[in-house]
Amino acid sequence: MITVSILGSGNVATHLIDAFSKTTNVKITQIYSRNLEGAQQFKNKANIINDLQDLMPVDVVIIAISDDEISKFSHKINSKSLVVHTSGSISMNDLNGNLNKGVFYPLQTFSREKNIDFKTIPICLEADSKDSLTKLHKLASAISNEVYIIDSNQRKKLHLAAVFVNNFTNHLYEIGNSICEEYSVPFEILHPLIKETANKIKKISPNKAQTGPAKRNDNKTIAKHLAQLSKSKQEIYSVLTKSIKNTFN
Amino acid sequence: MITVSILGSGNVATHLIDAFSKTTNVKITQIYSRNLEGAQQFKNKANIINDLQDLMPVDVVIIAISDDEISKFSHKINSKSLVVHTSGSISMNDLNGNLNKGVFYPLQTFSREKNIDFKTIPICLEADSKDSLTKLHKLASAISNEVYIIDSNQRKKLHLAAVFVNNFTNHLYEIGNSICEEYSVPFEILHPLIKETANKIKKISPNKAQTGPAKRNDNKTIAKHLAQLSKSKQEIYSVLTKSIKNTFN
Repeated sequence: MITVSILGSGNVATHLIDAFSKTTNVKITQIYSRNLEGAQQFKNKANIINDLQDLMPVDVVIIAISDDEISKFSHKINSKSLVVHTSGSISMNDLNGNLNKGVFYPLQTFSREKNIDFKTIPICLEADSKDSLTKLHKLASAISNEVYIIDSNQRKKLHLAAVFVNNFTNHLYEIGNSICEEYSVPFEILHPLIKETANKIKKISPNKAQTGPAKRNDNKTIAKHLAQLSKSKQEIYSVLTKSIKNTFN
Repeated sequence: MITVSILGSGNVATHLIDAFSKTTNVKITQIYSRNLEGAQQFKNKANIINDLQDLMPVDVVIIAISDDEISKFSHKINSKSLVVHTSGSISMNDLNGNLNKGVFYPLQTFSREKNIDFKTIPICLEADSKDSLTKLHKLASAISNEVYIIDSNQRKKLHLAAVFVNNFTNHLYEIGNSICEEYSVPFEILHPLIKETANKIKKISPNKAQTGPAKRNDNKTIAKHLAQLSKSKQEIYSVLTKSIKNTFN
């Protein structure tokens, strides 16, 4: 049995608590939340605390809070347990130097509104000792089939790449949606295209999958498109078109 | 039995020929290709021609060639059959005025390298008479479960929206891929995130699904990201970040 405590009650914390609760070989010992009320939903899953002095020794303590609070927060922890954070953009060494440190980064987009199968979520691990890494690997494997060892520098790049393929891509979906809404076209018509665009790159590289007027250098169509767009959307269209042209021409 | 002839032997033509061949109620009568050699792969599926004078009467003639050649090409056709094109960006009335006209636009990204289930591909129809529209609806329903009536103006907007959610999104995947390659991180780690980003918007709107530093107005992370990017990628990052900020702040 692996014992863990989760510090945080936000999005990532909630999904981790849910995933660990479903395993047979991981036990959640404690859940820390600044305000006890926010964590009441978890009261059947673990002991709820709001004072870090009450932390009990466990195999792994997981800090799952906002990126910019992790470092400061970790300095309030006094524990001999292995302490990890779950952030893509924070270095392992930003954690309190007195701790046994590591990173347990699930690379996925979490919404409270949408459940997700943790088994398919890549978990990127890092630790300051081989023993700790082995421990984390065991823990990650309990909830996911995709476990990777990734150092802080690689993880930073991965997080940056994720902003492009997730945050920015989602914003392009929103622009597509707004163009449809403006002309009373159901956005649903675009769903199969969105799905296929995402599926395609598992079989062929994004470079090979590229199509469209920018790739074809079809300036006539590009001009027609620009004429239909608001100024802010024109800017996005132009920058991406230029970048695609530079890639292919 | 519905009879069709396909004019063209490119990507869209190939996928249509393939889809129609699998039905029991559509018969491909002729396939036109400028050079006969290019169409030899279809010789078991229909009569191959390279002279438009040889066109036989059928229910629907489908022009599946490059957007910018459609109008001129249609003026070489002398037929009483219903003649449609398959383009998202070309108006129905760009077709030869002497023809019975329509549009048969499958909204999907086609690659020769990747097969696709036509049943899930939305087909957007338009016609200059009710009879023709009924005929097209029957034809489209033979290969797809997603048939929509969309006029030329709506189709133009749909095509524009498709550039954002397909062409531009794929380019963001390519940027993600290149960031990974640069630091020897396997791009595969991002596949589940890409898939979930695409799936999510079927359940919640892109607006609700948005996450990331731009939405949070997290300028510290944004600055860290920009510092890691080449100039051309910085430009894309900045424009999209600005647009997300404007949407939410």
